[in-house]
Amino acid sequence: MKSYRAELWFNTKKRKELVNITPQVAEAIRKSGIKEGLCLVNAMHITASVFINDNESGLHQDFEEWLEKLAPYGKAYKHHQTGEDNGDAHLKRTIMGREVVVAITEGRLDFGPWEQIFYGEFDGQRRKRVLVKIIGE
Amino acid sequence: MKSYRAELWFNTKKRKELVNITPQVAEAIRKSGIKEGLCLVNAMHITASVFINDNESGLHQDFEEWLEKLAPYGKAYKHHQTGEDNGDAHLKRTIMGREVVVAITEGRLDFGPWEQIFYGEFDGQRRKRVLVKIIGE
Amino acid sequence: MKSYRAELWFNTKKRKELVNITPQVAEAIRKSGIKEGLCLVNAMHITASVFINDNESGLHQDFEEWLEKLAPYGKAYKHHQTGEDNGDAHLKRTIMGREVVVAITEGRLDFGPWEQIFYGEFDGQRRKRVLVKIIGE
Repeated sequence: MKSYRAELWFNTKKRKELVNITPQVAEAIRKSGIKEGLCLVNAMHITASVFINDNESGLHQDFEEWLEKLAPYGKAYKHHQTGEDNGDAHLKRTIMGREVVVAITEGRLDFGPWEQIFYGEFDGQRRKRVLVKIIGE
Repeated sequence: MKSYRAELWFNTKKRKELVNITPQVAEAIRKSGIKEGLCLVNAMHITASVFINDNESGLHQDFEEWLEKLAPYGKAYKHHQTGEDNGDAHLKRTIMGREVVVAITEGRLDFGPWEQIFYGEFDGQRRKRVLVKIIGE
Repeated sequence: MKSYRAELWFNTKKRKELVNITPQVAEAIRKSGIKEGLCLVNAMHITASVFINDNESGLHQDFEEWLEKLAPYGKAYKHHQTGEDNGDAHLKRTIMGREVVVAITEGRLDFGPWEQIFYGEFDGQRRKRVLVKIIGE
């Protein structure tokens, strides 16, 4: 069994951003030399997400509006008694998910036609990271 | 390390359907010959879900009503400017999740008493698939 | 390839509770002797969750209030026609997620600065379990 580890770093210009990280994950798989296995991609911060969906800007706006409705910014979250103002970001990331696990087959991401991997930032404008961990052979 | 790959295909009669796929996943595990490992089961389409819950029809109706409330069909989603009408299905699948990872122990699904794996279709009536990828020994 | 399996048992005093299980998962990884691999941690019951977030009590209250709003207790869920009263718990666990997959690097949980693993109980006061399954080398 082989394993491989990489970190992807982000510092978004806006508080909330969705970033397509499919090319970076594909590159990590290529570097790993692993042909058959599993690849874990997870946010290492608890106000950010990694998820799979469509690379379509209208849908991304839909996600943003929907998350704002389900977990609004600026409410009197109890978490804010610590001095933070990002209670909403913890909830938004919970809806979108911390991680994805993807299959590697014949050395490539084993994906359906529209699957793309995104980093979902909900409290950005600072340096944060994603972990890529691959095991297989 | 061994690996095994299978695809499960669906073409649901209704736009929205929940399908119990536990027998097909168990069969893939049997065919793989893997006794100890991990099994990834993921929707290969971004308007469908794979999740684990109870095989109880009342609960399935509750899921349907609840998802319709959280992510209603027929709203003016920006995604629809592409000609699609399935913005709700992208959001519903996000709530339910893209994938599950399940343990294989002594050649079997290592499950609690009521765990069953479901394919959740939110924009069906066409051919779509689920990936099963197993690694272990 | 090596594999390791452990069960964690819970019997919460309250119906709903969040329990930090990071030390127990770290201990399972230590016992496994696995240095590089993946660790699956999943609820074995369908009214409970395993998730990763911050170990901050205010945030945990925010989660509880937010879940109660998204999936209220005591509604006329169809699932209750079976005699159950825990329809809300099935929905709450769906939001929070069944499982996490975490990376093991150099024999340790490969975590960002604030990541902690929680058991989320939404229908407790009885014996329930979490599965830890580790594969790697």
